[in-house]
Amino acid sequence: MKKLNQDKIGELNKLAKLVRYFILQSTTKAGSGHPTSSLSATDLMVGLMFGGFFRFEKNKPNYHNNDRLIFSKGHAAPLFYSLWAAAGKVTYKELLTLRKFSSKLEGHPTMQFPYTEAATGSLGQGLSIGLGMALNAKYIDKLPYKTYVLLGDSEMAEGSNWEAMQLAAYYKLNNLIGIIDVNRLGQRGETMLGHKISIYAERVKSFGWRVITIDGHSWEEINNAYEQAGKEKKKPVMIIAKTLKGKGIKLLENKNNWHGKALKSEQLKKALLELGNIDKKIEGKMLVPKKLLLKKYKSKSVKKAISVQNEMSTREAYGHSLVRIFNKFPNIVSLDAEVSNSTFAEIFNNKYPKNFFEMFIAEQNMVGAAIGLSKRNKIPFVSTFAAFFSRAYDQIRMSQYSESNIKFVGSHAGVSIGEDGASQMALEDISMFRALFGSTVLYPSDAISTDKLVELAARKKGIVYLRTTRSKTPNLYKKNDRFKIGGSKVLKKSKNDRVTIITAGITVHEALAAYEDLSKRNINIRIIDLYSIKPIDKKTIEKSLKETSALIIVEDHYPEGGIGEAVKSVISTNKPVISLAVRKMPKTGKMDQLLDYEEISKRAIIKEVLKIK
Amino acid sequence: MKKLNQDKIGELNKLAKLVRYFILQSTTKAGSGHPTSSLSATDLMVGLMFGGFFRFEKNKPNYHNNDRLIFSKGHAAPLFYSLWAAAGKVTYKELLTLRKFSSKLEGHPTMQFPYTEAATGSLGQGLSIGLGMALNAKYIDKLPYKTYVLLGDSEMAEGSNWEAMQLAAYYKLNNLIGIIDVNRLGQRGETMLGHKISIYAERVKSFGWRVITIDGHSWEEINNAYEQAGKEKKKPVMIIAKTLKGKGIKLLENKNNWHGKALKSEQLKKALLELGNIDKKIEGKMLVPKKLLLKKYKSKSVKKAISVQNEMSTREAYGHSLVRIFNKFPNIVSLDAEVSNSTFAEIFNNKYPKNFFEMFIAEQNMVGAAIGLSKRNKIPFVSTFAAFFSRAYDQIRMSQYSESNIKFVGSHAGVSIGEDGASQMALEDISMFRALFGSTVLYPSDAISTDKLVELAARKKGIVYLRTTRSKTPNLYKKNDRFKIGGSKVLKKSKNDRVTIITAGITVHEALAAYEDLSKRNINIRIIDLYSIKPIDKKTIEKSLKETSALIIVEDHYPEGGIGEAVKSVISTNKPVISLAVRKMPKTGKMDQLLDYEEISKRAIIKEVLKIK
Repeated sequence: MKKLNQDKIGELNKLAKLVRYFILQSTTKAGSGHPTSSLSATDLMVGLMFGGFFRFEKNKPNYHNNDRLIFSKGHAAPLFYSLWAAAGKVTYKELLTLRKFSSKLEGHPTMQFPYTEAATGSLGQGLSIGLGMALNAKYIDKLPYKTYVLLGDSEMAEGSNWEAMQLAAYYKLNNLIGIIDVNRLGQRGETMLGHKISIYAERVKSFGWRVITIDGHSWEEINNAYEQAGKEKKKPVMIIAKTLKGKGIKLLENKNNWHGKALKSEQLKKALLELGNIDKKIEGKMLVPKKLLLKKYKSKSVKKAISVQNEMSTREAYGHSLVRIFNKFPNIVSLDAEVSNSTFAEIFNNKYPKNFFEMFIAEQNMVGAAIGLSKRNKIPFVSTFAAFFSRAYDQIRMSQYSESNIKFVGSHAGVSIGEDGASQMALEDISMFRALFGSTVLYPSDAISTDKLVELAARKKGIVYLRTTRSKTPNLYKKNDRFKIGGSKVLKKSKNDRVTIITAGITVHEALAAYEDLSKRNINIRIIDLYSIKPIDKKTIEKSLKETSALIIVEDHYPEGGIGEAVKSVISTNKPVISLAVRKMPKTGKMDQLLDYEEISKRAIIKEVLKIK
Repeated sequence: MKKLNQDKIGELNKLAKLVRYFILQSTTKAGSGHPTSSLSATDLMVGLMFGGFFRFEKNKPNYHNNDRLIFSKGHAAPLFYSLWAAAGKVTYKELLTLRKFSSKLEGHPTMQFPYTEAATGSLGQGLSIGLGMALNAKYIDKLPYKTYVLLGDSEMAEGSNWEAMQLAAYYKLNNLIGIIDVNRLGQRGETMLGHKISIYAERVKSFGWRVITIDGHSWEEINNAYEQAGKEKKKPVMIIAKTLKGKGIKLLENKNNWHGKALKSEQLKKALLELGNIDKKIEGKMLVPKKLLLKKYKSKSVKKAISVQNEMSTREAYGHSLVRIFNKFPNIVSLDAEVSNSTFAEIFNNKYPKNFFEMFIAEQNMVGAAIGLSKRNKIPFVSTFAAFFSRAYDQIRMSQYSESNIKFVGSHAGVSIGEDGASQMALEDISMFRALFGSTVLYPSDAISTDKLVELAARKKGIVYLRTTRSKTPNLYKKNDRFKIGGSKVLKKSKNDRVTIITAGITVHEALAAYEDLSKRNINIRIIDLYSIKPIDKKTIEKSLKETSALIIVEDHYPEGGIGEAVKSVISTNKPVISLAVRKMPKTGKMDQLLDYEEISKRAIIKEVLKIK
């Protein structure tokens, strides 16, 4: 191991002291926060950022050549902010606003703070986000930046970390470097493995990573680890560091019951005495990144529509549409969880394999990686069976706080999938995606509208969910029909419509079949295809409500949080509003049998219409 | 390795042939299903069930001494049903109803089929369920039954499996035996590791398991593996078997593009010729389980209520309440994800440590284990921060199909948690839990009602969600007040109430503060504490709606799928119905600042009331 010279050690010591000082002052001022979890990782992070490894243009936090640093252990936010204070980018005064209302320095890192790469705080998500950024560097933007992820030992219990690890090894991401801060203590006691870093090492190694175990408070070992990690050519690297929680302050060091607690002012005084002289003038220096040009993403014009004969499933249309629009949105990246032959992401993969990543059956990591790609200015289209997005709901939830630009495409929605049964039926996905801040939820009913909505999704910044259907559906629209986010289509309308049917996706076809039947009995109904569920076309709904004597809302989804509740949330009426939704335990069978059984079929609609006078 | 005698091999061969015959016949008849994924595991399962290892009273599928067998790879359902056909418990005629409407033999195993231990089909969940059953055997019921879990190699990519593995090792579950069917092929191609079973072995071993690698089509090796596994005293055991997908039929064997496809009838004919003579009279025999008595769970009477001074947080009341009711419901088991000092499950752990399991930060596995415990007749109370239930939403979703009896208790709900910020705030949990089939959603506003609702939850079979609050709240109720699932409480009422406020949890206190202020201005408002959000007290809501001129619904939750939509879903009115919910990007701050910022505070309520004439 290379010896460090004393000047460098002296400087690192001064910086680490300053950072510890900032951590203690800011958390005591806040009256809460996680000083002990910050102190254990202080040396590791000072060594990285200011030890001659981290390349960062500090006045351009979003610069494409910067190394990326993600605090997966987001509760170490006081350390994160203190590092940037030591780098001269947060003033002491601002540091003391930690955790206060309207401060950029929130309890866990958010996008309010310009140096946050992605919001963290729900544990076990940072490595997947880092993986997305590393995939981007190695395979898409082809830039030499490195992605560092600081992990806590407690969070290594989250399976999502192991999903990220297997995939990082599979894609040979030698530009991804994890650092596990093994401080032994969780929130309420010791972790499963305590200080047994050899077991962590064995596990991580078996997942295909290069492992470097160190004393996380030795400058030599820290320095050596980053140096070795930087030279690795084939594998992702995990630095596993034995540390002490609360390191540097005797009252706290390696002690239980100090998680998430700030020092009282008397305790702080003693702690500061222990720290000794602080050099407040010193500033941590980072290396300058290489100045490489970013690959240009030139948008070209593309065909106006995919070609569809008479019928095509909306899931298949999705695949064709993604291919169609790619040249217009060349920063699209497609991710799929080993079901691309079902979601039809494979059509895109066949055409643009460089922009497709097989993520295998690990949905949490897939969504985390999409956050990472999105924060590096890609447009990830993430596909799997709609039901299995529930597996990654925490990552999806966190993606809203990272202000991500991700398109989620869920196939095989509802009981209409048929024989595979309840486990494969998404019946809560609309509810899941509606309940995200500022999200968009789209549900096309034919191939042509799917194609239009895929393009609108690509154009729309933010979280968009597109729900597709397993079975083939006949065309309802023409290539020149126009769609918009927040829009709807009135498919059937007359002056004497008895009832308005509001529906979307597969049940639009049931409503149309009901229309045909009822027409023969001289009963007219209005049909609205509510392809945009959020935002919702309140105006059209209100107009139809005024002009007809009842609403019937039909959806292949559980009633709660679905289309019915979305519609009822924007209207005010004492006319009858009937919600037809999945209200019996779903089971195996043919599509038509199941739609009938759940009373969301043509027959069920007719029955309800006939009840309205 | 012990040689098997030829008679036994002959019998196993006959049984395996019969099972393969059943698999092929039933899937071709169904026109869909997963024959190839079934064929690869046939020898492994025939060897287990009929090779002299599996102890099962076949006429009493729920018998407490039976070994348990979970098909984590639920798509191998045709194999599962065929095994029970070979055991004489499914007729050939019934087998041919596979995947048909109203058949017990659904596309993936469900509780319709009496031998299903838990519904599967969403991959990577079976091992956690098995872990719950093994925990029960070793630590609760103290019975010698073993739990076997059949896993696919594709699903080993799911992080949840590694969560289960680390915890099974931690709890030294030598009664848990996993079998990985490494058939190399996923749905759309090769898995990450293909046939490299040594890498699986290394990984599983590093997670603390005993590993036995075998050829999954060799009777000797299969037999030896189960024999060794049965003798293991300290560790869980993983049998890692190299197999061929489609084994036994040349057309299918080890071939890509055969996932989830049934043979056409011409192909079936050839395949049956290849199988040769089938002995349809042979019946697979299982060992008889030991006849041990089940520990009695005698319900004793308990105190009527916890003792509360003037105030206590609802999360703390939860802990005290669980202790209080334990003797009445002695089959309660408490599971917590390393936050028991925040959720206050630690109060229960301190008193009844034998019925508490620390599950560490691995929520998916925690919920899976709860399913397992529930299917062994325990009442799991599963607690973590409410936000982190989103991490296990797929397991929660599947728990409804296992007809589980689980109580989910989520603390730290809403923006009212304050400084920790958005990542820790549950703002979609009500929506998540409402959208489950037959679920119950409860949200108490003080310690006394919490105590009552915890007891009601324990008594109620099925999925119950209880949402608790971080901050202390003053008592609103008296010990003798009565609560019921589906009920509500009218806290303020007069003959000239201008508006009705419907709310629950923390915002009940905001509504009461608004009442005080408005009273001084001689404006009366009615206040309903809607502590039962699902089922909902439609009657009381309708009555108040009739008697007042508007509704204001207030909730510390995103609007979609929350209390506002729950209320609107059961009313029909053209009076104003205003929903106050979290509609701005949540941030860090003090509780009162955040409630004000999101316009769900006293001030916001007053403002809305004053708008109503």
